[in-house]
Amino acid sequence: MPYDEFDWINERKPTQTFQERLEVGIGDDAAVYRPMAQMNEIVCVDTMIEDVHFRKDTMNPFDIGFKALAANISDVAAMGGVPHFYVISIAVTPGWSEEELNELYRGMNELGARYQMDMIGGDTVSSRRDLMVSITVIGAVEERQQLLRSAAEPGDIVFLTGPVGMSAAGLELLLDRTKDAAYSEREKSLIAYHQRPVPQVEAGRLLVEYGGRIALNDISDGLASECFEIAEASSVSIELDFSGLPVHAAMKPLEVQTMKKHMFYGGEDFELVGTVASSEWEKLREQFWNAGMPLYAIGKVSEGNGQVILQENGSRTKLQKSGYNHFRSS
Amino acid sequence: MPYDEFDWINERKPTQTFQERLEVGIGDDAAVYRPMAQMNEIVCVDTMIEDVHFRKDTMNPFDIGFKALAANISDVAAMGGVPHFYVISIAVTPGWSEEELNELYRGMNELGARYQMDMIGGDTVSSRRDLMVSITVIGAVEERQQLLRSAAEPGDIVFLTGPVGMSAAGLELLLDRTKDAAYSEREKSLIAYHQRPVPQVEAGRLLVEYGGRIALNDISDGLASECFEIAEASSVSIELDFSGLPVHAAMKPLEVQTMKKHMFYGGEDFELVGTVASSEWEKLREQFWNAGMPLYAIGKVSEGNGQVILQENGSRTKLQKSGYNHFRSS
Repeated sequence: MPYDEFDWINERKPTQTFQERLEVGIGDDAAVYRPMAQMNEIVCVDTMIEDVHFRKDTMNPFDIGFKALAANISDVAAMGGVPHFYVISIAVTPGWSEEELNELYRGMNELGARYQMDMIGGDTVSSRRDLMVSITVIGAVEERQQLLRSAAEPGDIVFLTGPVGMSAAGLELLLDRTKDAAYSEREKSLIAYHQRPVPQVEAGRLLVEYGGRIALNDISDGLASECFEIAEASSVSIELDFSGLPVHAAMKPLEVQTMKKHMFYGGEDFELVGTVASSEWEKLREQFWNAGMPLYAIGKVSEGNGQVILQENGSRTKLQKSGYNHFRSS
Repeated sequence: MPYDEFDWINERKPTQTFQERLEVGIGDDAAVYRPMAQMNEIVCVDTMIEDVHFRKDTMNPFDIGFKALAANISDVAAMGGVPHFYVISIAVTPGWSEEELNELYRGMNELGARYQMDMIGGDTVSSRRDLMVSITVIGAVEERQQLLRSAAEPGDIVFLTGPVGMSAAGLELLLDRTKDAAYSEREKSLIAYHQRPVPQVEAGRLLVEYGGRIALNDISDGLASECFEIAEASSVSIELDFSGLPVHAAMKPLEVQTMKKHMFYGGEDFELVGTVASSEWEKLREQFWNAGMPLYAIGKVSEGNGQVILQENGSRTKLQKSGYNHFRSS
């Protein structure tokens, strides 16, 4: 545990900044930045706690920093926005060495640099048990272009930006055998999805550029839970077609019930799920194709009151609104 | 501890909003708000942890919420800004009842409403030990008008918006006898400064309206520590005159060494300390006078390299850069 809080914060202060609109970064009472013409501001917060969201035997410190920021960037992506800044609040326990904390910051800063994000503030406090990392991300999105969960309409196509469930499958391996065990290449690829998930900022931006009506959500709590959020916010129902869901090659050897559990209830994949008018679907898919990015039609929106239904071989099953629930798990 | 995280968050969602510039509040992946003409954005974060920043036997849940937000508003005030929004990350332990958490939110929301602030996001997670509340506040300040620590110049008058040290004196009482003991009226007033400190937003706004060069800091870690921050950021030294420091009536019965310890190293008073050109001092004091607010001249700025010196009866003492340090205390 580092000796001096003030020295520690000063040493973490970035030596260069990316965002031209930043006026005052770390080092005063608060950060100051200029607004951007024709853009609105976006803000979201996400918190990870040791032994709730990660364990030292499932995640390296680098991964913990990386993933804590990724979860927030994913929320900005789910609005169609661009992430610009982050502030970090970290509660440090005696069980964490300065080297481990440096690694955590390095993971966070490496992902931040990919998006040219600046760390512009933070608070470092001590905690008796369990490291806690809470990150607030600020970004921007074009005026009136934010992509909301409430925009779905009956007749829409439900789309997904990539296969899901790998993060949960990777976590299952890690909980069973820890991060230091020997893994096959297939298993390693699942673990990578859990430890260093990639937020889908570029996909969100393509959806804003498309310019039409889009409902959108990121998959942090599992595909079922995220579809429920869209269905409820839009007062519709969603019918998923199992045969349309992309399945990652590394998932195929899994027993089908396990695979489904991870795909629908696993979470933390950070792909985007959304809806678009069916008449616009081909245009949107082509736009993604031209950008070299996949987009999968996985179902349709129907009249309804917030149900999510899975269709498979002619049978229809109501999905549960599970996802991970922090209060319920305890 | 509340049963369902999602229900819990939804129940906390405000039923009305204050800020006209808010586009999307709680309920989507992120909040969205419009920028304001000729204003820059401000952001800061502050975290409070059970048994580090507060104890259940020193603070009511209402006070904990109130004070967690106050600490952030104070940072916005120290930039001369107006607070508009807050997002809260809270880690809840089994030891906290739903009623206690409701009280915490009520304290936070009551202070927020005073400033017409909207709660626009949050993350609620479970924790095994120690409640943690981390709040990020977003505000605005006129372009090029933010008040920085680095603006002090030799010859400046050092000013203070009100007496300090009461919060630390109140904490000493609470640690000794807990919040439920019987206290005299004098002791109760000290305790109130600790439990419900008032951020100095109006004073910060007066300093921006004044329009001249001002260095500014809020007193979160003690008057000495905050003066060091100004002295170091401005590459000057600060000489405080003990006879010029206002002393709250409730502090006067204290033994003088105890009183000084609280005044210089106590922290969490949230008054503002700053500097202004000596030729402008009378004008600024009159402006505060006209607004019905005090402003005290407590010292002067001299050439130097970051020292803070206390003058008293002709003797000069170098103050220590103590303040509260989370790593050092453990």
